[in-house]
Order: sequence, then C-alpha cells, then structure tokens
Amino acid sequence: MGKQGNKSDFVFQSITLIGIGLIGSSIARAVKKRNDLVETVILTDVNAEVRQKAKEIGLGDHVLDDVTVAVKDADCVILCTPIGNYAEIMQNISNHLKPGCIVSDVGSVKRAPIADMSPHIPQGVHLVPGHPIAGTEQSGPESGFAELFEGRYWLLTPTHETARNATQRMRNLFEGIGAMVEEMDPDYHDKVLAITSHLPHLIAYTIVGTADDLEDQTQADVIRFSASGFRDFTRIAGSNPVMWRDIFLNNREAVLEMLQRFSEDLTALQRAIRWGEAQTLEDLFTRTREIRRGVIDAKQEIPPSPDKAR
Amino acid sequence: MGKQGNKSDFVFQSITLIGIGLIGSSIARAVKKRNDLVETVILTDVNAEVRQKAKEIGLGDHVLDDVTVAVKDADCVILCTPIGNYAEIMQNISNHLKPGCIVSDVGSVKRAPIADMSPHIPQGVHLVPGHPIAGTEQSGPESGFAELFEGRYWLLTPTHETARNATQRMRNLFEGIGAMVEEMDPDYHDKVLAITSHLPHLIAYTIVGTADDLEDQTQADVIRFSASGFRDFTRIAGSNPVMWRDIFLNNREAVLEMLQRFSEDLTALQRAIRWGEAQTLEDLFTRTREIRRGVIDAKQEIPPSPDKAR
Repeated sequence: MGKQGNKSDFVFQSITLIGIGLIGSSIARAVKKRNDLVETVILTDVNAEVRQKAKEIGLGDHVLDDVTVAVKDADCVILCTPIGNYAEIMQNISNHLKPGCIVSDVGSVKRAPIADMSPHIPQGVHLVPGHPIAGTEQSGPESGFAELFEGRYWLLTPTHETARNATQRMRNLFEGIGAMVEEMDPDYHDKVLAITSHLPHLIAYTIVGTADDLEDQTQADVIRFSASGFRDFTRIAGSNPVMWRDIFLNNREAVLEMLQRFSEDLTALQRAIRWGEAQTLEDLFTRTREIRRGVIDAKQEIPPSPDKAR
Repeated sequence: MGKQGNKSDFVFQSITLIGIGLIGSSIARAVKKRNDLVETVILTDVNAEVRQKAKEIGLGDHVLDDVTVAVKDADCVILCTPIGNYAEIMQNISNHLKPGCIVSDVGSVKRAPIADMSPHIPQGVHLVPGHPIAGTEQSGPESGFAELFEGRYWLLTPTHETARNATQRMRNLFEGIGAMVEEMDPDYHDKVLAITSHLPHLIAYTIVGTADDLEDQTQADVIRFSASGFRDFTRIAGSNPVMWRDIFLNNREAVLEMLQRFSEDLTALQRAIRWGEAQTLEDLFTRTREIRRGVIDAKQEIPPSPDKAR
C-alpha cells in the first residue's frame, strides 16, 4: 500500500465522529495524520462552541452542525460522547445511517451502552463497540493529539450479531492509528475496567472531595504539600465530570461489587492500624510491590505524554 | 561566598547520614554536588550490603560500619531510616554525640518520632526534626539523585526547646540543596500529611491488594489494562513497605481520623451510585476539578524526575 492512498486502499471512504472531545479530536488528528486510512473525516458535536473550536483548529475535513446530515454518507460512525447520550443520539441518527455502515463507540463501559445502542441499529448496519485505553485528564477538542493511541490497547467488544468483517475493518482502522486491538466479552470488559479504572477514579474523586471539606488553612496546605501522594489523585479527579457520572451510572453492578471488596479490605487495614498489627501491614505492602513489578514488566508504565508526542 | 568554600564558609564541617536509602543517598549526592555546604559527609547503615553498595557508588566521603564511630565528630546527624528505628538509634548514639551537634531526621511523621528521639537528646545537643516532601517509589542507595530536593518543600518542625540558630543552620543546609524550607507545628504537620500522603498511600495499597485477590486471568488483564487509572496506584503502592508500616503505626490517630472521613464520603458516593443520583455524582466530580486547578496553580505538578534530573 503506497503512502498516497487511492480510493480502494482506504479502510473507510468516510467516517463521522460524534462528539469532539479529547478522544474524538484525537481520532480525527490520528486518522488525518495518515493519508491512507480514511478519505473524509466529518465531525459533529451538540455544542456550538466546541464545533467552532474544532473548525478553528482545522480538525477533520468538515465540521457539521446537524448530526443527521453528518452521518448520512458515513461508512463508519463513532460515538465519542459521554455514554449517557448514546440512546438519544442513536434514536436521532438511526434512520439516516447508510446500509453497510459500521457504528462504533469509545465508551469506558460496554454492556449497558450496547443495550442502549442495539435497538436503534437498523438492518444492514453493524455495531462494533470499542474502548481505547488511552486518555489524559484533559477535556475538549484542543486537548487531543494524534499520538494518543500509539502503543495503547483498544478493546473491541463485538456482540453475537456483529459480522466478523465489520470487526476486522474497525481493527484495521485502530491498528492504523497505532493501537493494539484486543477483542473481549462486554461483561468481562466491564468487570476488569471496574477495578482498573472506575474504582480508582471513584476513590480519587472521594479523597479529593474529603480534602475539599477541610477548613481553609488546612486545605491550602494540602494543595501546597500535594507532591507527597495526593497530587496523583487530583490528576485522576480532574477528569470530565459528566463522562464519569455516566460511567458510574452505567457500570453500577461491577463498580459496587469491586467497591464492596475494596471497603472490606480497607476496613481490615484500618483495624490493623488501630491495633498496631505491624506484620499485617508489612505483608500487604510487600505483596503490592509484586503487582507494581507486573505493571512495569507489562510495559504499561509509559504514560500518555501529549508534550512529548506533539 | 565563593564556589570553593573554606572552613568558615561551610554550614557544617561534618554531617553524618544514618540510613542510606533513597533520601539519605540523595542528601549525600546533593550536598557533595556543591562544595561550599559541608566539608565531610559520612554515611552509615545497619545493612552491610547497603554500605557496600554506597562505597561502590562512591557516596559521601566515608561509609562507616559503626554508627557510634560515624556520629562522634559530626556537627549534624540526620536520621534517614524508617521511623520505627529512631528510638534504638538514638539510644545507641546518644552518648557519642558532640556538644553543639544538631540532630535532624527526614521522617514522614513528626509527633511520635519526636517523642522517641527527645529523651535521648543530651544537654547541649539540638533537635531539629524535618521532612522533605520529595521522593519516588524507589528505594535503596542507587535510587537517589542530587536534584531530588530542588524546588521541593522541606518542612521543619522545631520543638519549644529547639534553639533558633540550630533551626537556621538546618534551613541553610536544605536551602543550599535547593529545597524550600517551611516551619510548622508537628501536630499540624501530621494532620496535613495524613490527608496528602498517608491516606493516599493507604488507599493505593488497599486497592492494589484488592486486585491481587482477583482470580489469575482477571489479575493478568488488570495489569495489562492498568493504564486506565490503576497504574498510578501501583506506583504509590510500590513504595518501601517497612517505611510505610512505620508511618501508619506512628501517625495512627490522624490517619484513622482522615480514614473515617474518607469512608463516610465513600459510603455516600456508593449510595449515590446505587440509587442513580446523577446530580450528586456530577456535583462532586465538578467540585474536585477546582482542587486540581489549585494544585496546578501552586506549581506542585512538576513530578520529581530522576531521569531528567540525572
């Protein structure tokens, strides 16, 4: 395949990204950085200011106001909005999708959003849900960058109805922008992400909220001396509020189950501190080091770095 | 003050660092990087392998086996061991300290360690407890670097008995290696650090332990997909187990109080998720963003970077 793609080389002639935030704008940048993946990239967003910003930055080929117009010629539509909006969006665009079109998404939860989208997928249109394990705590079209997905996992959770070649085309697209694509069951996805992502965010939001309730002087010093550990939590807790609200509401069961396990473990540790059980503490703190080594060995230690990547 | 110090220019003629871990070895490197702060840097450690490693790296001027010999000519002795060892160390060295010597430490808790050290401070020796808000999750003499303290806070918690000029000399030393020195009350220190450091570490240890209890396949995927938030917790939970065991045992009251507040807040959030209270979640997640902005504005966002610094 040559550097300058011709019509038949493209994975898709036209893709439409609904929602121009960190992820949507990064997909647009990544796809346009290569000229052999997609011929035309169309973006749309419910927010006029966001659309204006996307035009100013020059994201994609066209930024359109009307979502039904934006999707009508698309071979592929990717929902890049908070997952709470999926049902409404699908209702609006369902009758405007081209036969053979593939619908995908980038939501951090899979089962409930699939249930929201599925009823609105017309005959002849394919659903290939997805979730890139990539991001920063930044939001908005200006925060995206083309290299965001390089070397990161992109999980696809096709359903029983999904045609194999539809999944394969999405794989080609995402591998084309540097991601490592894996397929998995939606329920298993939601369980793994509940512990790797949703619970950590929930805890980070909680502790930063706890700090916010301290009296003013203490709070000021908490910020000044945040380098001692708290800072990492504030970064996580700086993420998009609406997106995260929707994640917790849509992965309720798995999050509550992991939260229950976590609370039990925390209570046990609290008891160990209260009663001065030195060995219990040391044993746990030694055990967790192994997991850290696993993360380093799995090369998951390279954080997404917009500064270096740009 | 010239670049090449002479005897009268030095802040101390001789300092002794007890404990050659990340912090002790970094102090040695930082002090020796400048030639006008201290004439002689002596290191000692209870662990023969660590001493051997320190000699190989060429840390300080002398690495000595016997702690009583190591301290006998020192103008300043800094304890850089886990705080659980302070009482025993002070008991051993108390009779060997030179009149006028200043004893300091780098422990992450202040009140209980001060109570451990104070009874062993002889007449004419000064206690200036301290705590640098700097570090990485690495341990051992090879993990230190001279720039670790640059632009970081170094908190001093002098007691009522501490002579002003002793505190001033420690300030001169730590400012000399790039730190921003602040004085505060030991109890207040322990309260602020309970929320900025001790509770975040406790939570990180807990969640990584919770993940460690999952069945094997899930655990493997937790590590693979850790980039989604969990990774930050594993870094924190990779810290020195003995050091952290001692921190929790020595700051029990403040940690348990903050943990109680945190647990209440987490329970409230758990309830909001269970009952689908969207607005409660969004309100909290929006509020926490403000704290994040505070951290960025306070320029506490530059992480210690051994790679860049070296």
